[in-house]
Amino acid sequence: MNDSTVRVGLLGCGTVGSALISLLQRQHDAIAARTGLHIEVTRVAVRDLSRPRPSSLPSSAFTDDTASVIADPDIDVIVEVMGGVEPARALIGNALNAGKPVITANKALLAEHGAELFAAADAAGVDLLFEAAVAGGIPFVRPLRESLLGEPIRRVMGIMNGTTNYILTRMTEAGASYGEALAEAQALGYAEADPTADVGGFDAGAKIAIVASIAFGAKVTAAMVDVEGITSVTADDISFATRNGYVIKLLAVAERFDASTGEQLSAAVHPVLVPVHHPLASVRDSFNAVFVEGDAVGELMFYGRGAGGDPTASAVLGDLIDASINLHRGAHASIGALAPARLRPAADSASAHYLSLVAVDRPGVLAAIASVLGDNGVSIASMSQSAPDSDLGGSLAEDEARIDFITHRTGRRDLDATLTILRSLDAVRRVGSVISVLSDEEDDA
Amino acid sequence: MNDSTVRVGLLGCGTVGSALISLLQRQHDAIAARTGLHIEVTRVAVRDLSRPRPSSLPSSAFTDDTASVIADPDIDVIVEVMGGVEPARALIGNALNAGKPVITANKALLAEHGAELFAAADAAGVDLLFEAAVAGGIPFVRPLRESLLGEPIRRVMGIMNGTTNYILTRMTEAGASYGEALAEAQALGYAEADPTADVGGFDAGAKIAIVASIAFGAKVTAAMVDVEGITSVTADDISFATRNGYVIKLLAVAERFDASTGEQLSAAVHPVLVPVHHPLASVRDSFNAVFVEGDAVGELMFYGRGAGGDPTASAVLGDLIDASINLHRGAHASIGALAPARLRPAADSASAHYLSLVAVDRPGVLAAIASVLGDNGVSIASMSQSAPDSDLGGSLAEDEARIDFITHRTGRRDLDATLTILRSLDAVRRVGSVISVLSDEEDDA
Repeated sequence: MNDSTVRVGLLGCGTVGSALISLLQRQHDAIAARTGLHIEVTRVAVRDLSRPRPSSLPSSAFTDDTASVIADPDIDVIVEVMGGVEPARALIGNALNAGKPVITANKALLAEHGAELFAAADAAGVDLLFEAAVAGGIPFVRPLRESLLGEPIRRVMGIMNGTTNYILTRMTEAGASYGEALAEAQALGYAEADPTADVGGFDAGAKIAIVASIAFGAKVTAAMVDVEGITSVTADDISFATRNGYVIKLLAVAERFDASTGEQLSAAVHPVLVPVHHPLASVRDSFNAVFVEGDAVGELMFYGRGAGGDPTASAVLGDLIDASINLHRGAHASIGALAPARLRPAADSASAHYLSLVAVDRPGVLAAIASVLGDNGVSIASMSQSAPDSDLGGSLAEDEARIDFITHRTGRRDLDATLTILRSLDAVRRVGSVISVLSDEEDDA
Repeated sequence: MNDSTVRVGLLGCGTVGSALISLLQRQHDAIAARTGLHIEVTRVAVRDLSRPRPSSLPSSAFTDDTASVIADPDIDVIVEVMGGVEPARALIGNALNAGKPVITANKALLAEHGAELFAAADAAGVDLLFEAAVAGGIPFVRPLRESLLGEPIRRVMGIMNGTTNYILTRMTEAGASYGEALAEAQALGYAEADPTADVGGFDAGAKIAIVASIAFGAKVTAAMVDVEGITSVTADDISFATRNGYVIKLLAVAERFDASTGEQLSAAVHPVLVPVHHPLASVRDSFNAVFVEGDAVGELMFYGRGAGGDPTASAVLGDLIDASINLHRGAHASIGALAPARLRPAADSASAHYLSLVAVDRPGVLAAIASVLGDNGVSIASMSQSAPDSDLGGSLAEDEARIDFITHRTGRRDLDATLTILRSLDAVRRVGSVISVLSDEEDDA
């Protein structure tokens, strides 16, 4: 490059793209003063040229021919904020092959084709940066890639979806039902009309696949993540958690194990009872946070906005400055080759659990249930029984009792065997929620 | 450099140095696999060669001739963990001038001579990295320098001293007095026999000077920081805070203002009443956290261990890997030139405040006090009065009442004028604590 101007081609100009254009204009002089570089968005590819754009760029900067932006010899860096797997994948591949650094916020794409794109970036010797794809505005990917490159990381646990955290917060603090809290989130624009990607845990699943890949240097895709959403979390579960010193959070968890057969990984998304004093418990509303456990560094947490135009644009801008500096130096940041992931079978997992069941209220039933747990190696940490007229007994028939257990750390196999037997007992009307508990005694949630 | 080995000269081999040696040995292969570099500590300068070293290095690696380590042509990178301003300053200067990158954990040095050393590093074209100097193991300096380089940062607030946070946590959660909590911290090794640097706020003051310099690109030294410690925080203050939904924290605050006369900065350390739902309120025990407010990114928080051998070594190792990669690329990270700091006069600051005073308990006194506040532009958000036999009245004489106010945002000048008048009133026996309150209505704490 022969001057200090960096010309950016922007693919997509929705909320994030528009926010980036205005943030970059506002910060242009400050960035130039600190880096000597003049970073300017000069071309923008959009799907529909007729839509009004809330941007101060001349209309000649806009095109609906995306490929022409990548091919333009005057464009130095590509920012992709269009979303979706195709055509983003092909476009980013073309840009990298043409030797142009790419910044992307596209979690779905990276969670499926990350390894291939990282390899293409390395082969071309250019940056592929993606801070905004995980935990939005929170600077987490760069610290993980760089600051913690030498750290023996054991586990990463994140509240990586703001919509579900908002819903769970409203259920906890305002006593809302799941349906009421979801409707509120939709009214506020936090949740889509079809909320499946959020409430089903799939959005968080894509993000933890990317995090696991970076943290453990392994090729983890979204399809490998064991995903459970929040749709079956009830007001009674929340109420039980509150009484017992927990907050229910949807956690995305990536973990590394030293199994006797070699190193194994796991990646999962599921609701978890988090002790109220744990830092993740205080992450409220639509905020995100990522909690890291390392052997040397101990516990870390990164907290902030996981979505929204301005926070996401802030993360994209950080990457854009980095890629621009690297381009001028002739350097690039490398993820390194990702090894195939050796996943630990879900049946090998273990955790403390909260179990809720409804049984016939007659003498001997509790003893029978407790002995099923004991016979199957499930050790009980605490137990409570609720009658139909009690706070947790609202949905019970007159002859029923609700029984809630918190178990000590239990293997998944033992737990599943226990649940099968409990469901077969005449005295057990139904087995309700089964939710992991984050506790000091366990190594995986 | 003509091979992939990076030879490290270590200055100082106390808790952090020893932890670094063993962490590096443990992680050597993993780092080599990811970076292609073999990073090895090959020489260690210590003050007393006769002291036993808990390290697996050969005794020939140790020397008490510090200068010889820097001059050694086989040493590629210097890690300084000896502490103190001199001779560290001269040694680091020599290393930089010799073209050797330096990693330091030395907050006192950087808070006094940072600008000069950053300039020396830039002139020599090598890295001077210092992640461990601020907030210990928390990866915060790199995100601040790089990820947030383009972010319009308004304020950074940190719990940057673990000793004082431990003491305040014990006072809040166990009802300990300041003296009891300090003794406990000393017994646990969190506080020194002479705790002044911690409890007087000076340790946090050095750290916020460094943070302000990086965040705002200005030359802020420890001497410019307005420092107040926790020694006058009483059990009654803590009790008042708890009843009113606050937690008292020692915050280090760096802030930027658009004054009509141009941009101004402030840097201060003082106790603050933090609302219990604020993320900083949940930072307990000896943990640290840094809270960042930016116009685009919104609110961020970085949480973790601020001290200790292993966490600090983790931060040093992250820098060491970065410097090693840069050395092989022939690149370096630059802070850029720091401009002179334009400090806002402390008298121009404004905040909500908690005021506690003891007055004679007779009719008309409260009205007289309230009218002094009103006449001086101090608006009252809430007020409570305690009798000698009440929970907050323990230290009162029989004819006294304790009166606690929380004010709306008040300028420092108005507040000081008010306090002067209150102290002169016959009915006011004494003015007790005056502590800032972090509230939504204010821009500076």
